[in-house]
Amino acid sequence: MLEKRNNIKNKFTFWDSFPQVQKDMIEISHIILTHVNSVPGLLGQALEDTFAVPGKMLRPACVMLFGAFGPDADQKHDELQKIATSIETLHNATLIHDDIIDESSMRHGRPSIQTKYGKHIAVYAGDYLVALSLTLLSENAQSLHSVIADGKTMQNILVGETEQYNNAYNIDISEKEYLDQIKGKTGVLFGLACFIGAYESGTKVTKALKAKKFGEYLGQAFQLRDDILDYTTTSSTFKKPVLLDVKDGIYSGPLIFALQNDDNNHLHELVKMGKDLTQDQLHEIENLVNHLGGVERAQKLADQYTEKALASLKKHWPDNENRALIEQLTGRLLKRQY
Amino acid sequence: MLEKRNNIKNKFTFWDSFPQVQKDMIEISHIILTHVNSVPGLLGQALEDTFAVPGKMLRPACVMLFGAFGPDADQKHDELQKIATSIETLHNATLIHDDIIDESSMRHGRPSIQTKYGKHIAVYAGDYLVALSLTLLSENAQSLHSVIADGKTMQNILVGETEQYNNAYNIDISEKEYLDQIKGKTGVLFGLACFIGAYESGTKVTKALKAKKFGEYLGQAFQLRDDILDYTTTSSTFKKPVLLDVKDGIYSGPLIFALQNDDNNHLHELVKMGKDLTQDQLHEIENLVNHLGGVERAQKLADQYTEKALASLKKHWPDNENRALIEQLTGRLLKRQY
Repeated sequence: MLEKRNNIKNKFTFWDSFPQVQKDMIEISHIILTHVNSVPGLLGQALEDTFAVPGKMLRPACVMLFGAFGPDADQKHDELQKIATSIETLHNATLIHDDIIDESSMRHGRPSIQTKYGKHIAVYAGDYLVALSLTLLSENAQSLHSVIADGKTMQNILVGETEQYNNAYNIDISEKEYLDQIKGKTGVLFGLACFIGAYESGTKVTKALKAKKFGEYLGQAFQLRDDILDYTTTSSTFKKPVLLDVKDGIYSGPLIFALQNDDNNHLHELVKMGKDLTQDQLHEIENLVNHLGGVERAQKLADQYTEKALASLKKHWPDNENRALIEQLTGRLLKRQY
Repeated sequence: MLEKRNNIKNKFTFWDSFPQVQKDMIEISHIILTHVNSVPGLLGQALEDTFAVPGKMLRPACVMLFGAFGPDADQKHDELQKIATSIETLHNATLIHDDIIDESSMRHGRPSIQTKYGKHIAVYAGDYLVALSLTLLSENAQSLHSVIADGKTMQNILVGETEQYNNAYNIDISEKEYLDQIKGKTGVLFGLACFIGAYESGTKVTKALKAKKFGEYLGQAFQLRDDILDYTTTSSTFKKPVLLDVKDGIYSGPLIFALQNDDNNHLHELVKMGKDLTQDQLHEIENLVNHLGGVERAQKLADQYTEKALASLKKHWPDNENRALIEQLTGRLLKRQY
């Protein structure tokens, strides 16, 4: 048991400079494992696999960090951990379902659930995590308010996720449309995490809505950064999905911004080839996106969203150690190179 | 608008002898349409398609019928309708996801969502309906109790749904295992519908749990009857799925019970052929299931579950017009031939 704990702890090096968050994330990992270990059959195995290698757990960390602001932070610490667990299981549900849609064979360097267990288990495993998330939230929330926020957030995420398919092969997609898309896809769940942490630790709704706004900015900056990495990292792990996305007509920030500077239409001609693009042409697109300033523009927007997040944090929350941690985390996420 | 209403009403002939339920179901249909009409893009279109031809809406009817027992029935009528809507949207979410897994091209005589809009929209449309269901429930429930019941029910449904895959190609599946499977697959959602109607209309939890039990029996009888129809209806609409299921190693009641009487092992030999089964051999299986008493045994069990449901109804609920309606509905569901 101790060995298992140590193994899990090793995976949380991201949080080395945040010992309290690290402790919470390890405990949340154990709460998740306790729940999925009780699920029988292939479904249970698939769920254990899902959480065998935890991600960075940024969303539950947001719950705990904003949960440390409220007057009931200490008294509600156990409930907050379970609510944070609920946000992490919901996030993993979206990842599993995204992998079905993208037909991704890998997730976090391991075979995706659908590759290993088939589409039927992947659909149900995602659904099960939504259900588990709901149980964890409703058993630990102080009122229906957080559950209502959860339901509406899920609706917004799904509208956001599908928005990119409505815009498939839309070479004229605007900056605003893209920013709305990443708000739905990533921003609103970060927003929910911050809101729910603040609210469930006893912060008033109006104030907790400021936490939501912070989370949305942070999430948008995070997604911009993620989309940038697709065009700047040399690792093949990162590149494959984005190349496939372009063939499928799904365009992210750097490409969209580069298209706006594509005066001689060369990038347009390439992108329009869609499914017929060769590997060499995809690399040419990658180079053009960098040379036409697409990455630069995306980075500038990521900086702006980070600034908005930090300004909102300073304006609405007390100048204490907890706020300093959130500032530190925000800076770190923006600069991450992996 | 009036014409549209009349069109919808025509689809509710199943409820002709239940005018109050019919009125509620028409109104619930409109609540659903109002919600899905506000969803943009392909997702919105797919959702409109989902509800263009309503099913019988048995589950929301259970909410309204048990919702008529409680002391707050009249005062909470609007909330009960929205909670019933939440159960119907959840049910449709499970249908959409089941169609992805079964790769069903048709649903209620129309192309399935994944056939018409692709797998990505089908996954997200199911997810969206779960989210909408949660919003409708949490905005109209009197307390977190119903939401907790909802989350746990969803978990149970998913364990039940996957149980049949754990038992794939298990030719020795027992009667008890099958009955547990159909409880998870169908019983628990009927149970939730009855519970939540009773509880949200002001019935005490302990009493509302009796409604849950009734719903589970009714759901199991209903699923047994559904599985029987696969082996007795002449319409090809009904037969195709079950034939495919047998090839995929998914065995339902009548086949499982027939295997127990298969003294000369002929049915066993056929079923073991799995994917290699020809159309003729599948028809032979169908005949054997009938001749070896599989249908008869399933019908007997369906009768027993119906009796249990009716006995529970008589024992725990007042002898009034509402109870008579539920009795009438129960008898009708068992005898349905379509």
